[in-house]
Amino acid sequence: MARNCRKDRSKALAGSWDKNAGNWARAVRDGLIPSRRAGTDEAIVNAILAHKPARLLDVGCGEGWLIRRVAQSIDCQALSIDGSAALIADARQADPRHAYRVFAYADLIEDAKSLGTGFDAIVFNYAILDEDAARLLTSVEPLLAPEGRIFIQTLHPRALDGPYRDGWRTEDFAAFAGPGWEPMPWYFRTVESWHETLRDAGLVLLDLTEPMADGRPLSLLMTCKSLKR
Amino acid sequence: MARNCRKDRSKALAGSWDKNAGNWARAVRDGLIPSRRAGTDEAIVNAILAHKPARLLDVGCGEGWLIRRVAQSIDCQALSIDGSAALIADARQADPRHAYRVFAYADLIEDAKSLGTGFDAIVFNYAILDEDAARLLTSVEPLLAPEGRIFIQTLHPRALDGPYRDGWRTEDFAAFAGPGWEPMPWYFRTVESWHETLRDAGLVLLDLTEPMADGRPLSLLMTCKSLKR
Repeated sequence: MARNCRKDRSKALAGSWDKNAGNWARAVRDGLIPSRRAGTDEAIVNAILAHKPARLLDVGCGEGWLIRRVAQSIDCQALSIDGSAALIADARQADPRHAYRVFAYADLIEDAKSLGTGFDAIVFNYAILDEDAARLLTSVEPLLAPEGRIFIQTLHPRALDGPYRDGWRTEDFAAFAGPGWEPMPWYFRTVESWHETLRDAGLVLLDLTEPMADGRPLSLLMTCKSLKR
Repeated sequence: MARNCRKDRSKALAGSWDKNAGNWARAVRDGLIPSRRAGTDEAIVNAILAHKPARLLDVGCGEGWLIRRVAQSIDCQALSIDGSAALIADARQADPRHAYRVFAYADLIEDAKSLGTGFDAIVFNYAILDEDAARLLTSVEPLLAPEGRIFIQTLHPRALDGPYRDGWRTEDFAAFAGPGWEPMPWYFRTVESWHETLRDAGLVLLDLTEPMADGRPLSLLMTCKSLKR
């Protein structure tokens, strides 16, 4: 894909979240996303809790459900970031006790260190939607504590409709009720491509699980550490 | 699954190969297996050649096509093993210049070291069909040279019909022409389960690729090294 086209998609992806913020917050809070209810929310929360992080960074936090859920079980100093100012406002309103910041993919690539370092857990829950994932992960790797882990949850290869190859797709949110959704471009990555991406970012895959419901895999859930530590 | 039932399946799996030896040798040699022709043969051969092994162990070699193909490109001291005496006889007849031995899963678990050590490549091309794969891999790990690699090719998660979970299935060879096929029990493993299996066997997954044809993934191809070296 030509560089400009890639940039256009990245921009449209980032822009879609501000436009969809209200709809998205309602979808998450009303439990309108079947796979989340069926097990992916529980899977990411359990993976994080098992690691008992004292400091957590939630990247692409959306309306902030994750830190609210994690904080029900453990004391955890958390920073939740998202590129959408509207979603960060929603998150802050829902629980002002936690720290939030409007911070986009581009900000992470330019200036991740301004978020602080020494995170025991850095979480991307369906939050790596842009093409250049290796650069994104390379940028956050230095923020990990020595025993820190990066948790990535993403689409399972069996859950994908259409040809199985890396590339941009469009989520039209047709499965969600209500008008006013803005289509969101997002980048699908094969399992092979995820492995390459992690390696290119200097990460080691420690765990790969496949949360299931009714004999169907809901997601891939990857736990990584830095190769350097 | 009860222990006896598992043993029965393992025994039926081992037995099916002697009964199917003639049909199998013909299927491989006449190119009757579409996924092999479409790319999985080429994928495993290229992965091996890229590692330039001086010594190679082909586990579950069948009628021996792999070493014949590898030997077209590199000089390589190879040992090819299979539990079926009939298939080993076929392999030896097809190219007597290489070394062969009748050696079953059970033999590997009991006495792998009698095969020698210092292998640069140990290959399981659709050859891990039994339930207790971790024990099998644990048994061969000490045979690796310091920079040695284990190559495993297996079914892709998107190519599986039916529910996605670990368990015994039956291959009825209905896709192959000709009478006289004996159904073969074989154990399917999810991607999560493969990761666990490799870790339990003290292996590190270095590479995972997905050979493709016509936008469809044909297989998972994993390259591993020992955690100890």
